[in-house]
Amino acid sequence: MKTYLDCIPCLVRQALEASRLATSDEDKRRETMRKVLGELSKVPFERSPPQICYQVHQLIREATGNEDPYSEVKKEFNEAASEMYPKLRKILVDSEDKLLTAVKLAIAGNVIDVGPGNKFDLGETVKRVLSADFGVNDFDHLRRELKRNKEVVYLADNAGEVFFDRLLIEVLRDKRVIYVVKESPLLNDASMEDAKLAGIDEVAEVVAVKIDPETIYAPSEAELLRKAGIVISKGQGNYEALSDVDANIFFLLMIKCPVVAEDIGGKVGDIVVKHSRR
Amino acid sequence: MKTYLDCIPCLVRQALEASRLATSDEDKRRETMRKVLGELSKVPFERSPPQICYQVHQLIREATGNEDPYSEVKKEFNEAASEMYPKLRKILVDSEDKLLTAVKLAIAGNVIDVGPGNKFDLGETVKRVLSADFGVNDFDHLRRELKRNKEVVYLADNAGEVFFDRLLIEVLRDKRVIYVVKESPLLNDASMEDAKLAGIDEVAEVVAVKIDPETIYAPSEAELLRKAGIVISKGQGNYEALSDVDANIFFLLMIKCPVVAEDIGGKVGDIVVKHSRR
Repeated sequence: MKTYLDCIPCLVRQALEASRLATSDEDKRRETMRKVLGELSKVPFERSPPQICYQVHQLIREATGNEDPYSEVKKEFNEAASEMYPKLRKILVDSEDKLLTAVKLAIAGNVIDVGPGNKFDLGETVKRVLSADFGVNDFDHLRRELKRNKEVVYLADNAGEVFFDRLLIEVLRDKRVIYVVKESPLLNDASMEDAKLAGIDEVAEVVAVKIDPETIYAPSEAELLRKAGIVISKGQGNYEALSDVDANIFFLLMIKCPVVAEDIGGKVGDIVVKHSRR
Repeated sequence: MKTYLDCIPCLVRQALEASRLATSDEDKRRETMRKVLGELSKVPFERSPPQICYQVHQLIREATGNEDPYSEVKKEFNEAASEMYPKLRKILVDSEDKLLTAVKLAIAGNVIDVGPGNKFDLGETVKRVLSADFGVNDFDHLRRELKRNKEVVYLADNAGEVFFDRLLIEVLRDKRVIYVVKESPLLNDASMEDAKLAGIDEVAEVVAVKIDPETIYAPSEAELLRKAGIVISKGQGNYEALSDVDANIFFLLMIKCPVVAEDIGGKVGDIVVKHSRR
């Protein structure tokens, strides 16, 4: 997905949030925001929002000297999700259609985010999503493709959300699942540490990829996606980065902003299972 | 009021809105936004938000060649307020405390704006404001000062809102009222034309001041404010520009953003009569 003009104020807002998390020095925050605005005045808007986001947050890390501004936030998210995990597991075990329930729970976990619309109620979201219909519904297609494939590449999204991903991976236990996290910190994106905290390494192979500013996923990883039988991609960021990649990708996400809503053909708040070749 | 870091995303959002109103050429909008971001990366944040806003919107006018991007919006606002005027006048005539009612109506009119929180329901707002308590309440002080003074300098805010101002000026008919509008277009700010449309020139002297980017109000006008017995200032923008000027100013406004709420000591949605020397 290309970067729309509407993404610009949002990128600025997010940069301010990150600057505040990265340093308590108000002068440094101001200086960082100056640099961000200067950078944004020059970036090619043909790039996807995650590419620009990566550049901006790389700059914030350099300007503030804080390598992981979101570490505390991520810790809180992991704790909240971890606490909820036993309850979610019971919902899954008691459910009739385990794949449908696990997919919905994995999408509910996508509400855990620092992006557009910061505030969320995890319990309420789980309740809402379980009884909601998909805004974009390629679920039956996903079910068929999962039957046909023995190997699944699963692109992680955020810390906290990893616990919800684990439930879906457990339902796919007859498959080889390759769970892809990011090697270096980017916002509240899931890392190897987060994946291990949720015990994903017990149910899948966890791979940490280097973030390439040109492609977000390094070219070799993009190749991995194209070669994969089936890819499950979590969250808006991965959709923004990969919606134009020609691979067998199912995007599982909750729509959080009007720009993605427009691009994907749904509305804000919708839960989505969208196939890349739809 | 100085410019807070929180003002930056808002200035960017507003610039995008103005760019879209100014031109339908998407490339020109993108180029304009680049220039705005570059400009914002360099402005001194010690300036007040209206000063920076003026610079940004001057740049948008130059970059798009559109001298008055908000002219259509202003027309709509004037029409909506004009239609409502007879009803508002009846409310005022039927009221017991005419000054209180007129002040509240003038503040209700301040909801007509393109700034933060674009959407408003004029009828609902009038109803709400008439029965609301002031969040910051220097109304009794205003009443006393109005009794002591024969001359009032009244700083206009937006198109549309001018019709609401007329009601308050009519209640002050035993005084000489100098109604101050802006000489050149800035967002949806009231112009001489708007004031005449609302018939303000029949009940007050209307003065159009040149906008000085350094002071927003030209130094000579700031002098006028300092020398005035009493100043009624409408809206957030005038508060942001003049909150540090040492004059007998009463700020009448509706709080529309968290930054002003914090600065003024109220909350978003509050109606405010605040004395400058409080």
